[in-house]
Amino acid sequence: MTRWFEDIHAGDRFDLGEHTFTLGEIEDFSVRYDPQYFHVDEEAAKHSHFGGIVASGWLTVCVGHKMMVDTLAAEEERLLALGEKPGVSGPSPGVNEMEFKAPVRPGDTVIYTLFVEGTRLSQSIPAWGLIFNRLDAVNQDGELVYSARFAGFSKRRDYRPGLKDFLGRWAQPLAVLGSLIKR
Amino acid sequence: MTRWFEDIHAGDRFDLGEHTFTLGEIEDFSVRYDPQYFHVDEEAAKHSHFGGIVASGWLTVCVGHKMMVDTLAAEEERLLALGEKPGVSGPSPGVNEMEFKAPVRPGDTVIYTLFVEGTRLSQSIPAWGLIFNRLDAVNQDGELVYSARFAGFSKRRDYRPGLKDFLGRWAQPLAVLGSLIKR
Repeated sequence: MTRWFEDIHAGDRFDLGEHTFTLGEIEDFSVRYDPQYFHVDEEAAKHSHFGGIVASGWLTVCVGHKMMVDTLAAEEERLLALGEKPGVSGPSPGVNEMEFKAPVRPGDTVIYTLFVEGTRLSQSIPAWGLIFNRLDAVNQDGELVYSARFAGFSKRRDYRPGLKDFLGRWAQPLAVLGSLIKR
Repeated sequence: MTRWFEDIHAGDRFDLGEHTFTLGEIEDFSVRYDPQYFHVDEEAAKHSHFGGIVASGWLTVCVGHKMMVDTLAAEEERLLALGEKPGVSGPSPGVNEMEFKAPVRPGDTVIYTLFVEGTRLSQSIPAWGLIFNRLDAVNQDGELVYSARFAGFSKRRDYRPGLKDFLGRWAQPLAVLGSLIKR
C-alpha cells in the first residue's frame, strides 16, 4: 500500500485492471516454472481433465501481483501530484488462503480486484499497521477463477515512539556499557 | 503426486533439490511480475529495510514449484523403470498457508523439501484422495526462508465405483428420459 495505515479502511476497493492471457505467455511461464503437460503441451492437454491447455495457477497469481504493484505505484503518483506525501508499504508476511476455482484458458480476460477486509496495528512492529486484503480474479463470463487472502504492512503516519520504544532503542548499548563498567 | 493415493503416507518426504538465485533471474522475474524497487533497483534497494536487492517471494515460490514438478516427473520415470504403473495426480485446489520468513538474496542457495502431513479420501470426487503437503525452503545457513501448506489430489488405485456412483452416472440421462416420456 502506498497509503498511510490511517488512510486505509475495511471496505476500500482497488480496481487493478484486466489482463488477456495468450497461449505464448502461458507456455513461456509454464516451461520455466510449471512444466506439467496440461500447461505446456497443447496436444496432450486435450486428453487431460481440462480438455485443453490452461494457465499455471502461479501465472494467474503473478499477473495479479504485477497489476497490484502497478496500481499502488499509480496511487503513489496520484498522491504526489496532489502535493501529498504518500505512505510507506512493507513486504507481505504471507498468504493465508489461496483458491484456484476455475481454469484460465488462452484468450481468457481476467479482471483483478483488491478488497481491504480489515486493518489493525502491528503487535510486533509498533510503527506499522497490518492490512488484511482479499484479491479476486474473475473471467469474462463473471466466473471467479482465483481468490486469495493475504496480509500487508503499512506505516503509521501519526506514530510517535513512546517511552517503551526509547527504552528499547537504548537497551542494547546500555547493556554493553554495563558489561564494560563491570570489567 | 505421481504415486497412487494408497502409496502416499503422512511422514513421506521428498527432497526436491537446491537452487542458487542469481541477480539476473531475480531482476528478470521482478520486472515481469513484481517491480517493487527492492526487487529491481540495486541502488535504491540499499536504502530499503532489506539493505539490498532481494528476490520476489513469488520467485521463491515458482522456483520451488518447478522443482516439485520435476521431482514428481522423475518419480514417475522411476516407477516406469521398475515396471510399475505410476499414479495419477490432479491439480491443487489451493494453498492454505504461505509464509515468507526471511529474504532471499542474490547468491543464496535455497534447499526445498516437501513433507506429506496427512491424507484423506475426497468427499466430492470419490475416485480421488487428498494429500496435505508442506513445502519448506531453507537457505545455506539453515534459515527457513519460506514455508507453505497446500493440498493436492491423487487418484485411488483400488477405487471401484459403488452402486451410488453408478446411480450418479445415470441420474442425468434418466432425468432426461423421464422428461421425454412425460411429453
